[in-house]
Amino acid sequence: MKISDWGEQNFIAYLSKQFPAKEGSIGIGDDCAVLQTEENVSCLVTTDALVEGVHFLTTLISPKDLGYKVIAVNVSDIAAMGGLPSYAFFSIALPGAVHSDWLKELTSGVKKGCDQFGVQVLGGDTVGSKNGIFINVTLIGHANKCDIKYRSTASQNDVICVTGFLGDSAAGLRAIKAKLPKSSAIDTLIQTHVHPRIYLDEGRWLASQKGVHAMMDISDGLDCDLQRVIKASKCGAEVDLRTLPLSESLLAVSSEYRWNATELAVAGGEDYCLLLTISQKYFEEIRRHYIKRFQHSLHPIGQITGSKMKYIGSEGGVLQNVKSYDHFS
Amino acid sequence: MKISDWGEQNFIAYLSKQFPAKEGSIGIGDDCAVLQTEENVSCLVTTDALVEGVHFLTTLISPKDLGYKVIAVNVSDIAAMGGLPSYAFFSIALPGAVHSDWLKELTSGVKKGCDQFGVQVLGGDTVGSKNGIFINVTLIGHANKCDIKYRSTASQNDVICVTGFLGDSAAGLRAIKAKLPKSSAIDTLIQTHVHPRIYLDEGRWLASQKGVHAMMDISDGLDCDLQRVIKASKCGAEVDLRTLPLSESLLAVSSEYRWNATELAVAGGEDYCLLLTISQKYFEEIRRHYIKRFQHSLHPIGQITGSKMKYIGSEGGVLQNVKSYDHFS
Repeated sequence: MKISDWGEQNFIAYLSKQFPAKEGSIGIGDDCAVLQTEENVSCLVTTDALVEGVHFLTTLISPKDLGYKVIAVNVSDIAAMGGLPSYAFFSIALPGAVHSDWLKELTSGVKKGCDQFGVQVLGGDTVGSKNGIFINVTLIGHANKCDIKYRSTASQNDVICVTGFLGDSAAGLRAIKAKLPKSSAIDTLIQTHVHPRIYLDEGRWLASQKGVHAMMDISDGLDCDLQRVIKASKCGAEVDLRTLPLSESLLAVSSEYRWNATELAVAGGEDYCLLLTISQKYFEEIRRHYIKRFQHSLHPIGQITGSKMKYIGSEGGVLQNVKSYDHFS
Repeated sequence: MKISDWGEQNFIAYLSKQFPAKEGSIGIGDDCAVLQTEENVSCLVTTDALVEGVHFLTTLISPKDLGYKVIAVNVSDIAAMGGLPSYAFFSIALPGAVHSDWLKELTSGVKKGCDQFGVQVLGGDTVGSKNGIFINVTLIGHANKCDIKYRSTASQNDVICVTGFLGDSAAGLRAIKAKLPKSSAIDTLIQTHVHPRIYLDEGRWLASQKGVHAMMDISDGLDCDLQRVIKASKCGAEVDLRTLPLSESLLAVSSEYRWNATELAVAGGEDYCLLLTISQKYFEEIRRHYIKRFQHSLHPIGQITGSKMKYIGSEGGVLQNVKSYDHFS
């Protein structure tokens, strides 16, 4: 069977079965692996691969933005577990025709991301490639053992929240690909796509709150990632589409170009805001403190149920058959 | 300037300058990065990228051997610092046409390597690729802080040693590419290439010996890697080509096909044996104990000098202009 038919999720499930984590460590299936280290501190490790032509096109993103983004998206995984990033390992495979200026700009973007998030690049690998650029970043961080948040700990009746607007990044990518004429709204969407905001401080703070149950970052889209939470937590979810936080830029551009903003928000991906579930009891208190502390909203979008994923509110109906992203199809 | 002209070493030097390691950590420039952790134990991290068409061809290596090898070559980096491997992170980019059977075989090879070396796979990334397979492995291990061996600690008059035969792997690759008819000697060379022996126990023991000064593993060939030691240690080296350990298989096949066995041993690469320097004073004692413990030889091949790299003994002359391997050219 071809991998395009077998599917990414089946391959990952197969890998998880082949490589079960031993006691004291948490392995495949969350944003980061958690390693046994000192008594109260755990080591977090995450890794992300980016492939030219699949995750980026050198014609559509500047090397500086790309360099920043490869660090940022890994930092987002550490943030989603409630940790602080420390060390990065940067591997790159390069065709011989790539220019040194491009590499220097890429490096300056990596450096910008590292400086912003307090990360040291400590190693990696530089190799040749016959076809296209391939980048892999492994990021190591740490967190207080008792604060780490997983995907598997959502509880029934939890309020489902996100920390930022949904769909802007996907709309930005669409705008880049379609070469839409410049406007303030379009620039905002594109900027969100090439230079995502990472909720590192927010993740740390939320992880320290007892009322926060499950947490992850949205990289493959709300639908895909919330499915991961409910699968890991053996529960269901009901999302009210009328409550999804949509930015003014997304609404304006979607209105102008007749895009379905809700669909972009549900299935778009690369939002890199945090998706979390909070116990009903503590929700209002946490939200109040969160807004005071971070000066932006914590958006409730639905609640954890007994089973299945259900969308309500879009023109009264239920959104069906949202297509999840599969890297191999 | 194109990266093929700029060169891998210049790019790495540029990266090292952009990302200097802070106190307590050792970064770019050795087999592994060394992280500050507990008082007496350091965390070692290494990462290796393998690109289809550059590092492997799916027509020339079985997926099981490839899976084993991606783990083994990373374990070799940990061994070269005197550490023990613990956790692996496995990223793979796959074109949609790759078969699930191939992936299952690859996974079984990864598992074989992990089981052999006591490694747990704890995470990674699975992504699509338009052109060719990319694999990246990040391996985390640990070592006693005071035992870790670096490239930069060779001292004048040290005896330069290697732990295994040189050139077999390069000859094996040549035999595979030339589709040479099967023979016992050719099979041995090919086996060395696709399923390298890793000197993990030897590395641990050697690192614990005070008389051992510098150590690394040979991945890009004796010449290239010894140059790295003398550059890092600010010294020179004199290698007696008559003392290079050449296997009977290499000598037999080289004689039959008129290959220059010495050249394969000096510049071939992928030997994955250890290259180390030992103080003159302790050399005989360490060698005696090594042979008793591991039941194979520790081969002296030259000595550390004040400056420059010099080869002696090949038909009385000095081997000049050995071409070092550059991944981008």
